[in-house]
Amino acid sequence: MADLELLGLHDSLSSPTFESMNFLNEVSHRFPDAISLAAGRPYEGFFDTEDVHRYLRIFRDHLMARFGGDEVPVRRLLLQYGRTKGIIHDLVAEHLRVDEDIVADPESIVVTVGCQEAMYLIARALRRTPEDALLAVDPCYVGMAGAARLADLPLLPVTDAPGGIDLDDLVRVVRRARADGLRPRACYVVADFANPSGASLDLATRERLLRLAEEHDFLILEDNPYGIFHDETTPPPTLKALDRHRRVVYLGSFAKTGVAGARVGYVVADQRVAGGELLADQLAKLKSMLTVNTSPIAQAVVGGKLLANDFSLRRANARENRVYQRNRRLVLDGLARRFPPGGGVTWNAPKGGFFVVVDVPFVAGDAELRQCAREHGVLWTPMHHFYNDGRPRRQIRLSFSSPTPEQITTGLDRLAAFVGTRISEDARAESRA
Amino acid sequence: MADLELLGLHDSLSSPTFESMNFLNEVSHRFPDAISLAAGRPYEGFFDTEDVHRYLRIFRDHLMARFGGDEVPVRRLLLQYGRTKGIIHDLVAEHLRVDEDIVADPESIVVTVGCQEAMYLIARALRRTPEDALLAVDPCYVGMAGAARLADLPLLPVTDAPGGIDLDDLVRVVRRARADGLRPRACYVVADFANPSGASLDLATRERLLRLAEEHDFLILEDNPYGIFHDETTPPPTLKALDRHRRVVYLGSFAKTGVAGARVGYVVADQRVAGGELLADQLAKLKSMLTVNTSPIAQAVVGGKLLANDFSLRRANARENRVYQRNRRLVLDGLARRFPPGGGVTWNAPKGGFFVVVDVPFVAGDAELRQCAREHGVLWTPMHHFYNDGRPRRQIRLSFSSPTPEQITTGLDRLAAFVGTRISEDARAESRA
Repeated sequence: MADLELLGLHDSLSSPTFESMNFLNEVSHRFPDAISLAAGRPYEGFFDTEDVHRYLRIFRDHLMARFGGDEVPVRRLLLQYGRTKGIIHDLVAEHLRVDEDIVADPESIVVTVGCQEAMYLIARALRRTPEDALLAVDPCYVGMAGAARLADLPLLPVTDAPGGIDLDDLVRVVRRARADGLRPRACYVVADFANPSGASLDLATRERLLRLAEEHDFLILEDNPYGIFHDETTPPPTLKALDRHRRVVYLGSFAKTGVAGARVGYVVADQRVAGGELLADQLAKLKSMLTVNTSPIAQAVVGGKLLANDFSLRRANARENRVYQRNRRLVLDGLARRFPPGGGVTWNAPKGGFFVVVDVPFVAGDAELRQCAREHGVLWTPMHHFYNDGRPRRQIRLSFSSPTPEQITTGLDRLAAFVGTRISEDARAESRA
Repeated sequence: MADLELLGLHDSLSSPTFESMNFLNEVSHRFPDAISLAAGRPYEGFFDTEDVHRYLRIFRDHLMARFGGDEVPVRRLLLQYGRTKGIIHDLVAEHLRVDEDIVADPESIVVTVGCQEAMYLIARALRRTPEDALLAVDPCYVGMAGAARLADLPLLPVTDAPGGIDLDDLVRVVRRARADGLRPRACYVVADFANPSGASLDLATRERLLRLAEEHDFLILEDNPYGIFHDETTPPPTLKALDRHRRVVYLGSFAKTGVAGARVGYVVADQRVAGGELLADQLAKLKSMLTVNTSPIAQAVVGGKLLANDFSLRRANARENRVYQRNRRLVLDGLARRFPPGGGVTWNAPKGGFFVVVDVPFVAGDAELRQCAREHGVLWTPMHHFYNDGRPRRQIRLSFSSPTPEQITTGLDRLAAFVGTRISEDARAESRA
């Protein structure tokens, strides 16, 4: 019998990052009736399967016009093996111009199987020797940590700060890494409403980060899945829009703004590689051995949505954004109502995105999540899963993107009950001691 | 400016396998008017974009019936983030039963982004240390060689034979590898109508290969993209259908039999990993950090096609198979008419698949392909691209899956003219010498 030892398989499989994903999935499956303030999924209220047909037809008509009514190349583009870098790169470039003021050569874009594939491609490309490493704000999105792990690219954690990243610490980490013989190749950052922290970089921090990248010779991997979901205030430009020296590799997702079920993302990699090719072309070579090309049918769905909305995903998501802003206010107001000042519970107040981080006066780890799910029927995410050291933390992440207002209200009631129970249990334990 | 050195990027990018892909793509782009007997693409004559809509509706109706008419879970399944192992695993299992007599637990199936992702996942999983290695018949499909390269998993080439694989050489390679401290983890093989060789394993070879896998403790990676495309003779059962000891990891593709534009493939990995989980679950963990999940919209297209054809891709591809068999006969008869015995040109005669290999009395490498494309207007594939050592070879691969009968006739005329020119040039050079 071909039975295998886990220790004989790639060691990412026994790493904490992969265990985290597993644990979080498992808990949500074990308590299907609990209210989830854990899942960072897009809002489902406006889902309509007819949209898929509509977007496909719009994109097909667009191709028919391009090919002067000749169906043969249109069918080939949609149904055959296709261009490794994708077939909606021109539409993506137009969307970046319209929504983000980013000027991107369509040839510098690789359309990927979700943003996740883009993360893996860049991690794999930048990892040549065991000395290569990736800088990343701690706490870090598990998808990036996992992709780096899969590419054998170690993370160098950089301390976060209320402004999203502690740049003095970044410089210290880079210097120490170099002194240790390591090569920090790039710094991964979500500049707008990060997952998990909800934090954003202000303009001065963005500009200093770009200068540091130039000065210390590393790339910036800017991941921007939540940037368009903000309140009436205007966030600063993206790092890529501010990039004058091709320091920024921009990672884009259509999972939150397009159609999650299409699994389409992209990367803008306009860096030149010796020989004159674009970094995008090198990433495409890796992609050709990973997934060959992103499903043109899936790309057509996203392309149709872009065409139907004059390339603006802000416009396409106006309804959804109203839901997210309402939910965000419900959570922030609801926390304020349930946790008065001085009670030991505090939280940040992001102006957009999907997440709020709550500090509680007790360790909120996996055991506590299980207890809360079982006894109080509400799910949240223990923050230690996002930290490189995995140490227990007194912090939880709340996601407000997918629940209804009623679920948010009831979920916060349940959370408050759980927190109250934990605090009084801890007080009793302390008085006994 | 962030300009990068190619030598600073992952070394697969400077490997011959990746150069091969690039060169072959480049030639077909440089000579767009040449007749291609090079591309191993499915026949396009029956392509119809309305099929996409039809299959999507069939799959949606199937889900509606499953959920008792409740649209909410149906929309969620199609449009939201989804199950890592896929949503058509049950339909794939049924297809394997109907078409291949393979009994597969749906839980042992991971639906992937084309078969290419499945190849990468298994290569990544099996590569833990630099001692791990992959056995593969030489010549080998470039997709598998590339995926292994990307996973830093070296290939151990095994000599091919008219029966598809030289099993005595396999044993020698395994013994030598073990003596060198290497761990041959698995043997990659296309048992039916291999790419590039067209060769198939007979029943006795299949059975002996399975015994050797058990005896020498390695897995078999069986890749089967062409198995259903055969003449009126019945090929032996797949290795997976003969597998009694869970030695075979089965790699499946819907690119040739389903819809290439969906980019959907799968892997059957029913091996147990210590702890009781299936190897499929380990591969899914890797996939969650690579592509998260295969587009459910793309899966729905394939699922609809399976449902529309009672799970039989043989039935779904009856028209296509008639085209492939006609083309195969046209190529074999055409070669016989143009290259009489004794002229130094010979070829194999597979009973199915997409490829025929022609031996010519001169080196047929990249320079010769370029010359033939420029001067004679026909493309083929130099066989050296598929060999691990990359040495020049007197062999070319002809693909007959996508051309029309007229293109085959004209293409073979042009090939004969090129071969004639080369032979007489060589003869002149020899007489001068």
